[in-house]
Amino acid sequence: MAEALEALRARLAVIAGLDHAASVLGWDQETMMPPGGTASRARGMAAVGRVAHELGTSAEYGRLLEVAEAEVAASGADPDGDDARLAWVARRDYDRNVRLPADFVAELREAEVVGTQAWQAAREADDYAQFAPQLDRLVALQRRLADYLGYADHPYDALLDAFEPEMTTADVRRVFADLRARTVPLVRAIAANTGAVDDACLHQPFDEDAQWALARDLTERFGYDYARGRMDRSAHPFTSSFGPDDVRLTVRLQPDFFNPCFFAAAHECGHATHAQGVPERFAGTPLDGSASSGIGESQSRLWENLVARGRDFWRYYYPRVRETFPAQFGDVSEERVYRAVNKAGPSPIRVEADEVTYNLHIMLRFDLEVALIEGTLGVAE
Amino acid sequence: MAEALEALRARLAVIAGLDHAASVLGWDQETMMPPGGTASRARGMAAVGRVAHELGTSAEYGRLLEVAEAEVAASGADPDGDDARLAWVARRDYDRNVRLPADFVAELREAEVVGTQAWQAAREADDYAQFAPQLDRLVALQRRLADYLGYADHPYDALLDAFEPEMTTADVRRVFADLRARTVPLVRAIAANTGAVDDACLHQPFDEDAQWALARDLTERFGYDYARGRMDRSAHPFTSSFGPDDVRLTVRLQPDFFNPCFFAAAHECGHATHAQGVPERFAGTPLDGSASSGIGESQSRLWENLVARGRDFWRYYYPRVRETFPAQFGDVSEERVYRAVNKAGPSPIRVEADEVTYNLHIMLRFDLEVALIEGTLGVAE
Repeated sequence: MAEALEALRARLAVIAGLDHAASVLGWDQETMMPPGGTASRARGMAAVGRVAHELGTSAEYGRLLEVAEAEVAASGADPDGDDARLAWVARRDYDRNVRLPADFVAELREAEVVGTQAWQAAREADDYAQFAPQLDRLVALQRRLADYLGYADHPYDALLDAFEPEMTTADVRRVFADLRARTVPLVRAIAANTGAVDDACLHQPFDEDAQWALARDLTERFGYDYARGRMDRSAHPFTSSFGPDDVRLTVRLQPDFFNPCFFAAAHECGHATHAQGVPERFAGTPLDGSASSGIGESQSRLWENLVARGRDFWRYYYPRVRETFPAQFGDVSEERVYRAVNKAGPSPIRVEADEVTYNLHIMLRFDLEVALIEGTLGVAE
Repeated sequence: MAEALEALRARLAVIAGLDHAASVLGWDQETMMPPGGTASRARGMAAVGRVAHELGTSAEYGRLLEVAEAEVAASGADPDGDDARLAWVARRDYDRNVRLPADFVAELREAEVVGTQAWQAAREADDYAQFAPQLDRLVALQRRLADYLGYADHPYDALLDAFEPEMTTADVRRVFADLRARTVPLVRAIAANTGAVDDACLHQPFDEDAQWALARDLTERFGYDYARGRMDRSAHPFTSSFGPDDVRLTVRLQPDFFNPCFFAAAHECGHATHAQGVPERFAGTPLDGSASSGIGESQSRLWENLVARGRDFWRYYYPRVRETFPAQFGDVSEERVYRAVNKAGPSPIRVEADEVTYNLHIMLRFDLEVALIEGTLGVAE
């Protein structure tokens, strides 16, 4: 009888249920919520965040966790088995969360809702200045978060650990230095020769309903199950899992550029099939979800760049694309479209980038985030 | 310094935030959720319900409420003022909720999610038998709810009190007996003469996008603010408030009948403008929302039947309807359409009924619910 483990499981199920609610609130905010709804949503998100935090950091919970860990250890359970990993993840989350005051968690959740809304409005108005004060507040909160969590070496370590467990800023710098040494000369060589690939065929008017239908077809063929998901529009594409039985992806559409919708659908579909593939027995536990952002991106980029920009894929799928857009692609050969979708080069936006440029963006984003947390870069810059 | 009252307010704000989350989960289930998402949603709803219940019934909360009440009483506050009413509503909710075990609340919330999904599926398949076991379970839970809550006279009193505070089954029977004595002969007289009104003009094909646009225009003219709301489709029309800044309504569309979308929009708009009209200072408190279902329906039926079926309204608005559907209404006079939308008579569905038939439906529904709770009517019947 693993009594404490069962009690821990029950408690974790309640916390997972609150996380489910928080995920739905977040998804709704970015896809459905009317612009006026920010204040109520911020209060709702803060309440759910606060309560989940309190449940998962109470003294009683800490004791329960200890007893459950002892139970698992005494049972001689497989250290890679579900019970041992559940206890391990619960311990990691507890040790992290217990350092944060509940008021701070509520403030952070509230600021994220308000900040996201401000970002959307600023993006629509193409006015960064309007977002800058919110970003300033968010960065300040992330610095406080790092201080609460503590770190041996670099404040960004504390934040990185939440999405890339046990990796440090120094680790990432090492990996990226190596990657950068190979990528930069490659991108330079490509940039010197951008005229070599003609991608004019991708920059034409594309009917939005037809783009949508194509994205739907593509994601279905990639194995995304619409009985357990749906596709919507949002300012920036994302995937949100409310459990393996309800994983939703979003795309955005540009009326005159083929890539954003098509490759965002492929990318998000990678995240979404990953999340739909979580075994049902992990539903309602902290074992639901991706092991890390890196693992998650490995899935999205597999489908976006290795599959959907692959030669075999275009041999197979181009007839369908052509049938959807005969006026645009009728006289474009398979070879030409294959080269066009793989055209590399500097681009300001991550989503529609090829694999090489994508890497540059990831590295840049990492440098930016680290510099903002260090304070070596200001929000105004 | 009303210290306890402020502490009570803070606690109520957290509970209201959880209620916000529960409302969003419920709205999402009926409008957006993929069919596969039921299990995760049921877990999420049960968790949010359980935690809100525990927060609002703890011994510590009970003590806080007592001290806050004493503070308000000692302050000589206006008994109809915000502070006194807040304490009164908090007390009413506490006295009610404290009788319910948290496990029961979680079970009820879970059953409501599963039951709603089963109802939707059965409705789509037009197969009542498929829903019957779920209805059976829901009725059994309502009986247990009544037993937990307690009642002096009739088990339905305990349930009625939740949406029509301080009214009893006997009260409603008295009101309805009077209403029925006047309504039944009226409906009989009407039924004997159904040929007198020709409503064929309402039973024609109506383009769904055009119906939608008309409903949008109508609700805007009735004062519904889309910056703080949105309109969607659902199996049965409803309005859901997440706070005065985010109140959403739904309609359903029939391709060959004018009434369902148009009058559902008018009806739900009554609820929605009522909810959007709640003063901002009540947001995030238990004073947000309608005082009772009866008050709520007074608003929805005001707009649906007294306004949108009124002669003055059709004089004003018919040009817009005709412009939207020239083929259907081009040669239908204002007098004929006014009589058609007011055609009374037995109808199986509440939403598109005139005021008189509506009353019959409300009375029937009351009798049905009371009989199910009494057990004098079985689910199979």
